Amino acid sequence: MTIGGSVAELGRRERKKLQTRAALEHAALTLVAERGLAGVTVEDIAAAADVSERTFFNYFRSKEDALVGPGPVPLAELQERLTALPAGLPVLEALRLIARAEAERLQEQREQWLLRLKVFERNPSLFPRIAAGCAETERAVAAAVARRTGVASGSGYPELVAAVVTAAFRVALMRWSAAGGHPDLVDLVDEAFARLPAGLPHP
Amino acid sequence: MTIGGSVAELGRRERKKLQTRAALEHAALTLVAERGLAGVTVEDIAAAADVSERTFFNYFRSKEDALVGPGPVPLAELQERLTALPAGLPVLEALRLIARAEAERLQEQREQWLLRLKVFERNPSLFPRIAAGCAETERAVAAAVARRTGVASGSGYPELVAAVVTAAFRVALMRWSAAGGHPDLVDLVDEAFARLPAGLPHP
Repeated sequence: MTIGGSVAELGRRERKKLQTRAALEHAALTLVAERGLAGVTVEDIAAAADVSERTFFNYFRSKEDALVGPGPVPLAELQERLTALPAGLPVLEALRLIARAEAERLQEQREQWLLRLKVFERNPSLFPRIAAGCAETERAVAAAVARRTGVASGSGYPELVAAVVTAAFRVALMRWSAAGGHPDLVDLVDEAFARLPAGLPHP
Repeated sequence: MTIGGSVAELGRRERKKLQTRAALEHAALTLVAERGLAGVTVEDIAAAADVSERTFFNYFRSKEDALVGPGPVPLAELQERLTALPAGLPVLEALRLIARAEAERLQEQREQWLLRLKVFERNPSLFPRIAAGCAETERAVAAAVARRTGVASGSGYPELVAAVVTAAFRVALMRWSAAGGHPDLVDLVDEAFARLPAGLPHP
């Protein structure tokens, strides 16, 4: 086998892995949306995705893991994205652009995310995991805001901006879900983020 | 026994009940702050407050119950407080006054609340209960904002305002806790709430 061949082989294996992961996530979300979390086992999910339980556990530690989707954006990546934006841009505007890109990413997997949000709403036992993820995102955003603005961490400003923008994103997401995916999440995020520097005026 | 006597008796019994509840909460918070949640039993808490386990369960369903403090402000009370404020007051200013009053109430039990916030931070297993309480408060605030502003529930504006003000209160609370109770919570709440209608300007 040539090196080129093994690289191609690896590419194929990686693609196959991503497909299996996506199939397991889809099966988990579809089954839980139908029956509720308590009515679905790992065995059911594996069977629906046509793999063994053992294979399921190569990808996820639990059925909950297969539902919650990609975790929060890591701090390093967030710092990188913020640094890549023009220095003159006000921090709220920079965060709006990042939130917008995130909304576009979610919209690319529109059906999957709408299903995931419904599953979140209907299964309160998932709440702690989701809340922990939100708290982690908020801490990362606060650290990134402190770095970009030069305002010290812990002084209240970076923490407030982080709490407010993650709240705005969450509200847009809930509205998108409640409305069944129309209008576009990007537009809802834009609307919410436009209200922040304007001081939340009466519409 | 005269009617006056039985009323006085009732007053004494109510006072005694409040004292017992406060003693149990104080014992629970102090013990958990020292040993962590897993290291404390209901038996320990009852013993520290000098009552029986049975008495403990007259007040609380679990040791977690004894830690989390009074739950979210009910919607009816929030509506009432908002209605009592002059109609011309912008909604963010009205909410600032309500948050300020809430901060004053917490500050009246300063040591108890600082201890409670430390216990919250150090015992992640309490997180779901706290997050659920925050979500309930946020829903109540959104409904109250919709009513006061005349902007429809679900249109995004009441939800955004509610998410943002509860985030601002939470950030002030965390800062107060991190700083060991100085400056006053009221001042931290005022500072955070002043930033919202101003559009979160760089300080």
